[in-house]
Amino acid sequence: MPDTKQFLTLTSAQRPLFVGIDVGGTNIKIGLVDDKGRTLAYHSVPTQAERGAEDASRRMAEGVAYLLKKVGATKTDVSRIGLVTPGPMDITKGLLLTPGNLPQWWNFPIRDRVAELCGLPVRFANDANAAAFGEFWCGAGVDAHSMVLLTLGTGIGGGIVVGDLLVEGAHSCGGECGHILVDPREDARRDSLDNTGSLEAYCGSYGVVGRAQDALDSGRASTLAKVRAAGELTPLDIADAAEAGDDLAREVVMDTARYLALGIVTLIHTIDPDSVVLGGAMTFGGAGSPLGDAFLQRVHDEARPRLLPPLRQSLRIDFAQLGGDAGYIGAAGLARLEHISWSAAH
Amino acid sequence: MPDTKQFLTLTSAQRPLFVGIDVGGTNIKIGLVDDKGRTLAYHSVPTQAERGAEDASRRMAEGVAYLLKKVGATKTDVSRIGLVTPGPMDITKGLLLTPGNLPQWWNFPIRDRVAELCGLPVRFANDANAAAFGEFWCGAGVDAHSMVLLTLGTGIGGGIVVGDLLVEGAHSCGGECGHILVDPREDARRDSLDNTGSLEAYCGSYGVVGRAQDALDSGRASTLAKVRAAGELTPLDIADAAEAGDDLAREVVMDTARYLALGIVTLIHTIDPDSVVLGGAMTFGGAGSPLGDAFLQRVHDEARPRLLPPLRQSLRIDFAQLGGDAGYIGAAGLARLEHISWSAAH
Repeated sequence: MPDTKQFLTLTSAQRPLFVGIDVGGTNIKIGLVDDKGRTLAYHSVPTQAERGAEDASRRMAEGVAYLLKKVGATKTDVSRIGLVTPGPMDITKGLLLTPGNLPQWWNFPIRDRVAELCGLPVRFANDANAAAFGEFWCGAGVDAHSMVLLTLGTGIGGGIVVGDLLVEGAHSCGGECGHILVDPREDARRDSLDNTGSLEAYCGSYGVVGRAQDALDSGRASTLAKVRAAGELTPLDIADAAEAGDDLAREVVMDTARYLALGIVTLIHTIDPDSVVLGGAMTFGGAGSPLGDAFLQRVHDEARPRLLPPLRQSLRIDFAQLGGDAGYIGAAGLARLEHISWSAAH
Repeated sequence: MPDTKQFLTLTSAQRPLFVGIDVGGTNIKIGLVDDKGRTLAYHSVPTQAERGAEDASRRMAEGVAYLLKKVGATKTDVSRIGLVTPGPMDITKGLLLTPGNLPQWWNFPIRDRVAELCGLPVRFANDANAAAFGEFWCGAGVDAHSMVLLTLGTGIGGGIVVGDLLVEGAHSCGGECGHILVDPREDARRDSLDNTGSLEAYCGSYGVVGRAQDALDSGRASTLAKVRAAGELTPLDIADAAEAGDDLAREVVMDTARYLALGIVTLIHTIDPDSVVLGGAMTFGGAGSPLGDAFLQRVHDEARPRLLPPLRQSLRIDFAQLGGDAGYIGAAGLARLEHISWSAAH
């Protein structure tokens, strides 16, 4: 059976409980979360996207039932479910539109189907937005009222909280921070959607690897040349080479920091948040790793002089704290927010 | 005595009334506004910045008294004042910090001083943000719940409304959209703050004139060469030449549209608002002028293909509707919002 990460005794949990479901291309993460954001039980199932959204919805309902049983709770202990998926989506209608990594699921009314199968109301949201809300609720943004999260991976996910509320957008596209533009040139680097000059085109994994490959192609000496000769170059190869002192690899990492800083300056001049938080696999080891810490410091050093003077002292860029749990915890947090609004109105 | 733009009889006005005060480098605009955003009386006085903030505060109080008398109202008809100034500022403390065009006013506690002199509570805000709130309340954004206003002039002012609320920022720097970055090159164009690659560096008046001058310097033929030989080139010269069919001038205008579109794409991927609104003097004639309409169309055409596909159909970019009144109307609207919150809590 599934890995169950963390148990707190149900008696210590603050009611009502919430379920967070984070649907990814590979796994569906399901967490039972209490009113303070603590995970009481956790369960992960393979997405098996090719079996379709109806099949996955049934397995989500089974997963929820399994978790409740595991901690000796019943459906009546749960106020509602937060369900988050990759976009594009129509949040108002509860509809998946055309998520790239779930091609068999397009146009599926997932919110209402999961609600029906689980017998609980469902709050539907974007996965990257939910991760931001998770970090805001009980991670790196716990003391903030406004926050931007950038999740660095294959692409760049984003989420924005302003005035304690998530910016979901008028067309379910709020916080699509990977698609802000940082380069106006017609021949700028292209991202996965074939757009030129986006933040993702430079700082997503393909952008990072692409910049290393361009440098190798231009004849730069590097230990990465041998790695590439043996197979495809990965971001991990670049991180390893940078940690081992390879100049080119280190330059690629620090250039990533510079481009990211440009995007962060733009986001700060737009939102002026309490803090900016960086998460995801492409943080070069993250907090505590020498390369990750040097990367974060460089982002800070590149951003700071480009800010309006009143913003320089207060600049705060931190690593995320919840890792891969941010999505389902944020989903549960959004369910909780809907519960609070609903309770206030009833 | 002052010009009084518009009178509605007080009997038709919806109480309570609000005063909006918009402090600019040249003039202070004061409007008495009703609960529906209608201007009952308007008054403009020279700022005379060099006489200092205390002197100006006294003249603001006199202006408010004058307007009330003019419409036969008293202080008890007014709920509160909205006072907006250029930044940088500390909104929470009600303090001007270092506004570039009011050098004698630095660090003046303007909110509390105006409140004291007028005997009314004052809501303090940034002028560009207030203009956005004005357009949102009763101008181009009247049917929106989220909106971005870009005010194009010497610099580029910005204001953002999300979920019917103004994004003022954790450090009073929300919506500083002129300072988002659109060009990563070290040798990119510089703005008034000496930052490279900002939207303002390309689309503020100096950026527009600078691009025309660079083209002339590179030997491009244009009627602007003769204009420049006779004196300093202005944005109006460029607009006139573009309207008269000068190729270079038209290219400068349309390049402005392209850079602006890059910034707008970034803002849309961040906020995903209902609409984007363009105001200010640098809109090349604005709504109804052939050049202004062509400019707006070009902004639209450049932005649309760069957007995430779900956002392309819904793209809405409009000209502002309130002109130079947006600031004081928005100030009154913010005062009204504070009145509503206060009333709900008391």
